[in-house]
Amino acid sequence: MSGTRSWWGWGRVEDALPDDACVALAAALPGCATAPVPVPVPTGLPPSRLPPPAALADRFSTAPRDRAAHTYGKAFRDVVRALAGDLAAAPDLVAFPRTEADVVAVLDWAGDAGVAVVPYGGGSSVVGGTEYRGGGHAGVVSLDLTRLDRVLEIDPVSRAARVQCGALGPVLEEQLRPHGLTLRHFPQSFEFSTLGGWLATRSAGHYAMGRTRIDDAVEALRVVTPAGVSESWRLPGSGAGPSPDRLFLGSEGALGVLTEAWVRLQDRPEHRASTAVRFTGFSDAVAAVRAISQAGPVLANCRLLDHGEARFSGAGTGEHAVLVLGAESAAGPVGDVLAEAVEIARGHGGTVSGPRDGDTAVGAWRSAFLRAPYARDGLARCGAVVETFETACTWDRAEELITAVRREVGAAVREVCGAPGIVNCRFTHLYPDGPAPYFTVLAAGRIGAQLAQWDEIKHAATEVLGRHRATITHHHAVGRDHRPAYDRQRPEVFATALRAAKAALDPRGVLNPGVLLDRLAT
Amino acid sequence: MSGTRSWWGWGRVEDALPDDACVALAAALPGCATAPVPVPVPTGLPPSRLPPPAALADRFSTAPRDRAAHTYGKAFRDVVRALAGDLAAAPDLVAFPRTEADVVAVLDWAGDAGVAVVPYGGGSSVVGGTEYRGGGHAGVVSLDLTRLDRVLEIDPVSRAARVQCGALGPVLEEQLRPHGLTLRHFPQSFEFSTLGGWLATRSAGHYAMGRTRIDDAVEALRVVTPAGVSESWRLPGSGAGPSPDRLFLGSEGALGVLTEAWVRLQDRPEHRASTAVRFTGFSDAVAAVRAISQAGPVLANCRLLDHGEARFSGAGTGEHAVLVLGAESAAGPVGDVLAEAVEIARGHGGTVSGPRDGDTAVGAWRSAFLRAPYARDGLARCGAVVETFETACTWDRAEELITAVRREVGAAVREVCGAPGIVNCRFTHLYPDGPAPYFTVLAAGRIGAQLAQWDEIKHAATEVLGRHRATITHHHAVGRDHRPAYDRQRPEVFATALRAAKAALDPRGVLNPGVLLDRLAT
Repeated sequence: MSGTRSWWGWGRVEDALPDDACVALAAALPGCATAPVPVPVPTGLPPSRLPPPAALADRFSTAPRDRAAHTYGKAFRDVVRALAGDLAAAPDLVAFPRTEADVVAVLDWAGDAGVAVVPYGGGSSVVGGTEYRGGGHAGVVSLDLTRLDRVLEIDPVSRAARVQCGALGPVLEEQLRPHGLTLRHFPQSFEFSTLGGWLATRSAGHYAMGRTRIDDAVEALRVVTPAGVSESWRLPGSGAGPSPDRLFLGSEGALGVLTEAWVRLQDRPEHRASTAVRFTGFSDAVAAVRAISQAGPVLANCRLLDHGEARFSGAGTGEHAVLVLGAESAAGPVGDVLAEAVEIARGHGGTVSGPRDGDTAVGAWRSAFLRAPYARDGLARCGAVVETFETACTWDRAEELITAVRREVGAAVREVCGAPGIVNCRFTHLYPDGPAPYFTVLAAGRIGAQLAQWDEIKHAATEVLGRHRATITHHHAVGRDHRPAYDRQRPEVFATALRAAKAALDPRGVLNPGVLLDRLAT
Repeated sequence: MSGTRSWWGWGRVEDALPDDACVALAAALPGCATAPVPVPVPTGLPPSRLPPPAALADRFSTAPRDRAAHTYGKAFRDVVRALAGDLAAAPDLVAFPRTEADVVAVLDWAGDAGVAVVPYGGGSSVVGGTEYRGGGHAGVVSLDLTRLDRVLEIDPVSRAARVQCGALGPVLEEQLRPHGLTLRHFPQSFEFSTLGGWLATRSAGHYAMGRTRIDDAVEALRVVTPAGVSESWRLPGSGAGPSPDRLFLGSEGALGVLTEAWVRLQDRPEHRASTAVRFTGFSDAVAAVRAISQAGPVLANCRLLDHGEARFSGAGTGEHAVLVLGAESAAGPVGDVLAEAVEIARGHGGTVSGPRDGDTAVGAWRSAFLRAPYARDGLARCGAVVETFETACTWDRAEELITAVRREVGAAVREVCGAPGIVNCRFTHLYPDGPAPYFTVLAAGRIGAQLAQWDEIKHAATEVLGRHRATITHHHAVGRDHRPAYDRQRPEVFATALRAAKAALDPRGVLNPGVLLDRLAT
């Protein structure tokens, strides 16, 4: 990776917003601070309670910057705490295993020493997935897997590759490119997240439809657990019992450490087309995307931005909802697929933008999408409350849910921040039976109070999602932040099974304690 | 269902082959008996060891025909044993619950009484999934779920339905038809298998590509376990932890009894097209279907029949491998999709049949497909060894596997039966990373020895699949017959987790003992 990774905020240090840009952005939220909080330095770390195990000493770091960078993920909550210099939760050690045997050795040592191990890929979690909380362990190790980043084998006939799970998105794709193949999995965090992170959190890529969730790209998994190494067979399909891979997908480091996966690849797409469609009413736009999702054309992009989100991203003026459409294919031209979607959208009252306006809308949306996390950090430095949350539900209750979220989260923002703020919605993914609505909250908060302010707003969001039986997360995962809501959503019988599996695979309770399950009584 | 369900053989009594047809068919296998074994009558049942629980007495049957019909599934092994009058494994009781509360009550009673409960849908298992083996229980109840067969709710907006799991295929589709919707899941056993059976065994439908596996149709599940009732939320997609549904999918009655599911529906297809392509060499045909599976067109049918299978089914003369192609859609004409596949096939040396020959081949294949299990029973009555087995593997080793199967299973047939016999292959399902090869074995066996003969041939088949790390089952499930191979294939770490889950959900070990896992030590 070129550039320097930020230890406290999103992405690269070089891409962070300069102070004046932060202030300019914050001007859109009256009440924000006019001078940003300074970029923090990693001081105030608690002393490390643990020496690294002697036999593995060269795989460990106690450098303050490493410990600070591995304290949190990259949620708004994390940025705000890092800005405030709160590093009390820092791991005692950061391990950088270079081989799977190193991973096994770290787990063995941790089990004997009663040390918690928090698996860490790119560290882009926005749900507290990589942050140790609670106690009862002799220490905490952050297990940074990014040295395990090789494509070990490519099968061009079946179009699959065996990949080490610590590969960051670009590192993985660079190794596939010479073969004309791609995993084609591009979450917003692509540059700063790993294959293992995607698998452990059941990541969804930025494609709106079709094969977009990483689960469906998995041919086989290799997982290191305290009970041994699990390796499934490479199979295109199998009906032999419950899928072993599906138990580890979404296990968020609580059942084992993913070290390798065979993943399904695709030819690199060469044909692309995109356009944008405007709708006066949001309901018409929802009806259009539902019809598209049920009619059959598989689009790479089919993102519905509500009026506010369209204005905010620059894809529209705020007078319309905007549907950004894109198709791509390795096989041949995609004009017909796009035309089919446009035709359906027209039938629901959509107006197709002219080619130039269309390109502008598509480009603006894409640029805003990539810039958003950096803007978030800049706004946070000016005291804003700025965060997202996301869900999925069936079509029959989608509009009712969105209306309720706007109303109740909007009310919470007003109540907490003393001013209206902004609650925007877009659909990130579409299924024949429902959309994945994604919400952005923006408001002028108060430096020093932002954490509490957001937690109260998030509480309102969680309540309304739960009441509508909409998932607490479509693709951000559970981590620690979503635990109460996840516990409510998860069938208790399944929790019983998962607890039993955890106790069997991790009897000493060292793996990412508190994620998915409470620490086991010992 | 019109007609009378056969208690010992496939499907309806009325559709069974008459004696002369059995003999005519068996003439193709020199060495078969010239007089078929008589159709059996269910005598020789061991006395029932259990009285039904008084509070549920009207939900139970001890009628000999019910007990006989619930003794086995419908594999060749089952038919041969029924023909021989071997009913020693008959359940003591057959329960016909009419409500979910009945299911709960039966499990409660069974747990207290130490009685094994074998869930039973349509009874079409070909892997010993519904047959109690082994001991240690005070008795055995076959839990026939076909009285729970209602579509309880339809959501036309999201195109989904809440369905009781005991609905047989036609019973389910009849209730959906007035709404213009279909589950579009048509395994070969469609008429004689239930939604719950499909879910419990991760059934694949007869569509060769696209959404053909029942797993992907599941929005939510309701499962009765001894530890309580599990109900997941209706969600089009979720990243909240490991999927709860995926643990129960494929659990084959060992973790719970599936009582309801929300399933994703589709509009009924109105546009159809089909054709057939011939190939001189099998390798060219394999290359063609691989190219089709990786190029993108989603076909309803893309079945490659090898030379022998083409002749056997009447779709060809035996001089060519035949690729049967079909496309269907609710949205619009499918000629282009079919043409794309044909073009690819041509590029690999395929010759497109004329319209009449094409229709003949397609029709012959379809008719043979539906007739096959009845033919199997007729041949079995004449002493033939006639069975199928199926698998899936990645493309890179598909041809090597098929060659090895032909050689080694062929050798086993010769060794066991003293004559060459037939080992045919077709591809039933195609994925971008590999096919699902399906093998048919036909040989003249000896009445009285067929079971041992088949077991020896199957042993050879299992060995060669395992050596190539090809799954022991793509869509027939594990049951009891595939246990040793499944145990070898399943990662031991996953087995540990599954055993723990089983112990937590079914602590008294009453649910389908011996399926997926050994009975727990108590």
